[in-house]
Amino acid sequence: MHDIAVIGAGRIGKIHAGNASAEPRIRLKYIVDPVADAAQSLASATGATVATLDQVLADPSVAGVVIASSTDTHLDHSLRAIGAGKAVFCEKPIDLDLQKARAAAPALGGGAPLFLGFNRRFDPSFRRLNDRISSSTMGALETLHIVSHDPAPPPIDYVRVSGGMFKDMTIHDFDMARWLLGEEPVDVYAAGATMVDPAIAEAGDIDTAKIILRTESGRICVISNSRRSGYGYDQRIEAFCAGGLLRAGNMLSSTVESWTESGASSDPLQNFFLDRYAQAYREEMTHFADVMDGVKLLVSYQDGIAALAIAEAAMESHLRMTVVNLSY
Amino acid sequence: MHDIAVIGAGRIGKIHAGNASAEPRIRLKYIVDPVADAAQSLASATGATVATLDQVLADPSVAGVVIASSTDTHLDHSLRAIGAGKAVFCEKPIDLDLQKARAAAPALGGGAPLFLGFNRRFDPSFRRLNDRISSSTMGALETLHIVSHDPAPPPIDYVRVSGGMFKDMTIHDFDMARWLLGEEPVDVYAAGATMVDPAIAEAGDIDTAKIILRTESGRICVISNSRRSGYGYDQRIEAFCAGGLLRAGNMLSSTVESWTESGASSDPLQNFFLDRYAQAYREEMTHFADVMDGVKLLVSYQDGIAALAIAEAAMESHLRMTVVNLSY
Amino acid sequence: MHDIAVIGAGRIGKIHAGNASAEPRIRLKYIVDPVADAAQSLASATGATVATLDQVLADPSVAGVVIASSTDTHLDHSLRAIGAGKAVFCEKPIDLDLQKARAAAPALGGGAPLFLGFNRRFDPSFRRLNDRISSSTMGALETLHIVSHDPAPPPIDYVRVSGGMFKDMTIHDFDMARWLLGEEPVDVYAAGATMVDPAIAEAGDIDTAKIILRTESGRICVISNSRRSGYGYDQRIEAFCAGGLLRAGNMLSSTVESWTESGASSDPLQNFFLDRYAQAYREEMTHFADVMDGVKLLVSYQDGIAALAIAEAAMESHLRMTVVNLSY
Amino acid sequence: MHDIAVIGAGRIGKIHAGNASAEPRIRLKYIVDPVADAAQSLASATGATVATLDQVLADPSVAGVVIASSTDTHLDHSLRAIGAGKAVFCEKPIDLDLQKARAAAPALGGGAPLFLGFNRRFDPSFRRLNDRISSSTMGALETLHIVSHDPAPPPIDYVRVSGGMFKDMTIHDFDMARWLLGEEPVDVYAAGATMVDPAIAEAGDIDTAKIILRTESGRICVISNSRRSGYGYDQRIEAFCAGGLLRAGNMLSSTVESWTESGASSDPLQNFFLDRYAQAYREEMTHFADVMDGVKLLVSYQDGIAALAIAEAAMESHLRMTVVNLSY
Repeated sequence: MHDIAVIGAGRIGKIHAGNASAEPRIRLKYIVDPVADAAQSLASATGATVATLDQVLADPSVAGVVIASSTDTHLDHSLRAIGAGKAVFCEKPIDLDLQKARAAAPALGGGAPLFLGFNRRFDPSFRRLNDRISSSTMGALETLHIVSHDPAPPPIDYVRVSGGMFKDMTIHDFDMARWLLGEEPVDVYAAGATMVDPAIAEAGDIDTAKIILRTESGRICVISNSRRSGYGYDQRIEAFCAGGLLRAGNMLSSTVESWTESGASSDPLQNFFLDRYAQAYREEMTHFADVMDGVKLLVSYQDGIAALAIAEAAMESHLRMTVVNLSY
Repeated sequence: MHDIAVIGAGRIGKIHAGNASAEPRIRLKYIVDPVADAAQSLASATGATVATLDQVLADPSVAGVVIASSTDTHLDHSLRAIGAGKAVFCEKPIDLDLQKARAAAPALGGGAPLFLGFNRRFDPSFRRLNDRISSSTMGALETLHIVSHDPAPPPIDYVRVSGGMFKDMTIHDFDMARWLLGEEPVDVYAAGATMVDPAIAEAGDIDTAKIILRTESGRICVISNSRRSGYGYDQRIEAFCAGGLLRAGNMLSSTVESWTESGASSDPLQNFFLDRYAQAYREEMTHFADVMDGVKLLVSYQDGIAALAIAEAAMESHLRMTVVNLSY
Repeated sequence: MHDIAVIGAGRIGKIHAGNASAEPRIRLKYIVDPVADAAQSLASATGATVATLDQVLADPSVAGVVIASSTDTHLDHSLRAIGAGKAVFCEKPIDLDLQKARAAAPALGGGAPLFLGFNRRFDPSFRRLNDRISSSTMGALETLHIVSHDPAPPPIDYVRVSGGMFKDMTIHDFDMARWLLGEEPVDVYAAGATMVDPAIAEAGDIDTAKIILRTESGRICVISNSRRSGYGYDQRIEAFCAGGLLRAGNMLSSTVESWTESGASSDPLQNFFLDRYAQAYREEMTHFADVMDGVKLLVSYQDGIAALAIAEAAMESHLRMTVVNLSY
Repeated sequence: MHDIAVIGAGRIGKIHAGNASAEPRIRLKYIVDPVADAAQSLASATGATVATLDQVLADPSVAGVVIASSTDTHLDHSLRAIGAGKAVFCEKPIDLDLQKARAAAPALGGGAPLFLGFNRRFDPSFRRLNDRISSSTMGALETLHIVSHDPAPPPIDYVRVSGGMFKDMTIHDFDMARWLLGEEPVDVYAAGATMVDPAIAEAGDIDTAKIILRTESGRICVISNSRRSGYGYDQRIEAFCAGGLLRAGNMLSSTVESWTESGASSDPLQNFFLDRYAQAYREEMTHFADVMDGVKLLVSYQDGIAALAIAEAAMESHLRMTVVNLSY
């Protein structure tokens, strides 16, 4: 049994706290949040105790820390927790600044037990897709299509501090691309645009993009992004292999269909990432228990840096309207 | 090259005439219809000549006759054509009166070249379903579900002379059941109702039914009928086998789908039997050319009698609300 | 917060105990099971205490009892718990003997807080189907098809004590039929057979059935059962309404598909009822909390009797090969 | 009734000759082919007469000419036929040399009755997709995904004279993009590769590509190509609009599915472009009859030049690994 603390009692902190409570190998001991009411409310609901980060790091019984606080604190909290000898499960992104993130790599990368929460790798369907690609039963992977469209854009205040769509949203797709391609991209072309809301353009960001990545062996990956699908959370991947196609698709909110004279209609796509990836978040907590048991990390700090580097290059490609080489 | 005549220039006669024109081994020589305008119009469109049935039967160059006239003439025209040495392709049903139909069996059954047009046996998907059942790759067939719902009821004037829903509509499903089950039913239970239009009840008929057939070896078949689906022409079959399920389904009017916040919607089902079974009618004409070439009949007069006998028993079951034995 | 006990530490008891632990309004206080190891193991995993039924019923802090023990104890345990003033959540069936079940109705039916666990009513897709039928947006319900095929038959030792397929398995479908039809059936015809395993016939039971129910207003329902689908847990419902068709279907084990030269293949259907109905079991426990909060029962003891009565009539119909009237 | 000639008695010439025979407003008078046997065989099957191109052009009764001869003759035959006052239905591409094609524009473009056979515009599902985009019921079109993968690569001898994948295969997708986007692309990035067969690389061509087009208003289009899908003829389009997604998909060879313990399997995709686009070819001939009746061209010579220009720019982009501007 591993005692842990959850830092951050917001939307994603609540998810992780609930999953920690349900994981048999983990005991949720502390909740940390500068907003006292939020901390107390989550602690009451989960039977945990409110504490400060200092108290958590000073408690030798604490084996791990889940960092679900705001993005600008991820790096500092990770460094302190790793320094205190705790295992870390840190939400993505590790930071919005590639240089700062790289500077911390000696401490947080390598052998450090820092598990970076790229949740989509833990989605059962995407994991099964990865397994089937890796097993090569369909022949070698040749090209990859990732469609990742959000239901609706975030508030404009969030857009302003998000680091831009590529670092905030596409970073998941860059990680999926690296994971499924099984090798690093060598160049990127990103055609971005603002189609959804002019306020996003005024905030200096984009809301729509099509991206092409190429790898050293010649594999090609297309990523499609939109901040507003108009039809729910569209998360699909197609892997074109030498022997055929492997695909993983969307989840519907129910299996109910209606057939009328105007055609057959399903229920809507799941509309919210916490519904779509509920199982993935549970699997992440299971993996964090594994990490505290000494099992090898499935997603490391280096994975976070690699995705961030592609996001920066994609932004450069978009701004300069040209193909950008990726050198690691 | 076989010269043929089409008797009947109505809706189904036009289909057969068009298919005869397109079949390389067949030359459409005559059109026969008591309505002179209809006969002339179809003859002009197909390059055929208007004639009487007597003229057709007296012409030694005519190898075959397609009987697409009204149901009450099927038996008489078939007897005369077979008597004149012609091959016959007769629309279903052979007659509405089982006793009369049985009385003609010595002349029309056995070795007579009378091909009865149960079109669904020639639908490519149902044929493939039959092939896969017969090949036993899924193990022995155990039970069968046939859904056969029309888009909308026929005119009430047609209902009055139709012979009743079981002889007019379900007869196709009884034939499909016999064909796919590979053996004869031994009893039938039919629960009928009038749900669509009270005028149908006033005309002495029903518009909705669920039917259970059992065969000697113990196979069980369910048939579902409605004169009005409200969503197009619903033609589906499920064959439950020892090793799994085989299904054949509906055709959509296009592959276009739309995804919106209320769900995913397809285009409508095909709405008209002439669209749904267009390919089946072409395949029927190809088979009639085969028959004139001496190939064995795929559907015989006896098949027509067998389906008619089940239809009569189903009506008795419905009226008496009991299971009825079938004895051939 | 309601303290409860779970009686029975077997497969289904574990599910209910886990869901009770996760339900915020419920505290799982006791586990009862004559097998000491089973009771202790489940108590340890959930933080509950092992107790006897007498101790549970004598504890005034206990508000409710979940009865997940063997079928032959359901009635006795329910009577004792209701007698002790506890709310009851009892697994189906209430008993295998209709006469005994009816005799207990004065105590357990009417206003008694006994929630009978027909889990399928709590499946999100079937519930949504019911909502859409009830809302009549598709017009009046006319006929209903329920397909309910198990992946594989239970052990023959279980078959012998199961009360027969109709009381053990079809009873769920009879309950779904009553719930969705919105009225009681007036007669039943059941065509049963043994196709899966001769040992089931030797045990006096069947493994395959097609059933037709008719209601007073004339609605017709078809139920299809098999103890062995060969392709997973097949749970589908089609509701044919005046304005079109409403359907609810199966859950796949993932969204992954492969496309090869032999066609497109999905992952398998979910194969196990505990996976298929995991969400339904969670919703049941939420409803039990509602019941302890004073909310009206969604499934009552009378629902259990009604389904059991149809099951008895279906067996009579199967054995006598005739339609059987249902008189309540 | 319009008399026409078909030039070319090869695979596609036979399709057009058959469709011409079936089109009520067209009479197929002549077949022209330098291979005497091929010409005679097709003429016999269709009731036409073998002639030379000179004879055809000199016959004042001939209203139209279908040019289905080899690509290197398209331009010359078109010029001669238009010069002789005939309407022309010319197979794509108009030529492999953009400069030569542009030089002929004064004669063949503008008001000349030259219908260029981009067959996919006549596919019922793609046409319905276009109608739905144009009607704007889903809001403005924002981005477009075109997947166009062939079942298997053509013979290497064909590859050598094909003009390269972009001019031979992608040219259809460039035309679809222009048609569906409703405006011209302003730049193109093409990431090409040889993944299928090293012999294709040796022949100086590629077999795989992902392409991004951008239009003046900012719409973005992705095209995916492979010469070998491994799973049939994959022809899908997704149109992401402000209000949701419109899609058109693949055709299966039948509606039969099997469900087994390893999942649900469909029948294969249609494997051959002549099957997939059979209806589109029929609709093309209907449009040619329209053109001879004086109806406005749906696809013109200018459309052929525009697609060819994008193909040249795509090749330049691929070779130089950079974004290429398109200036018309």
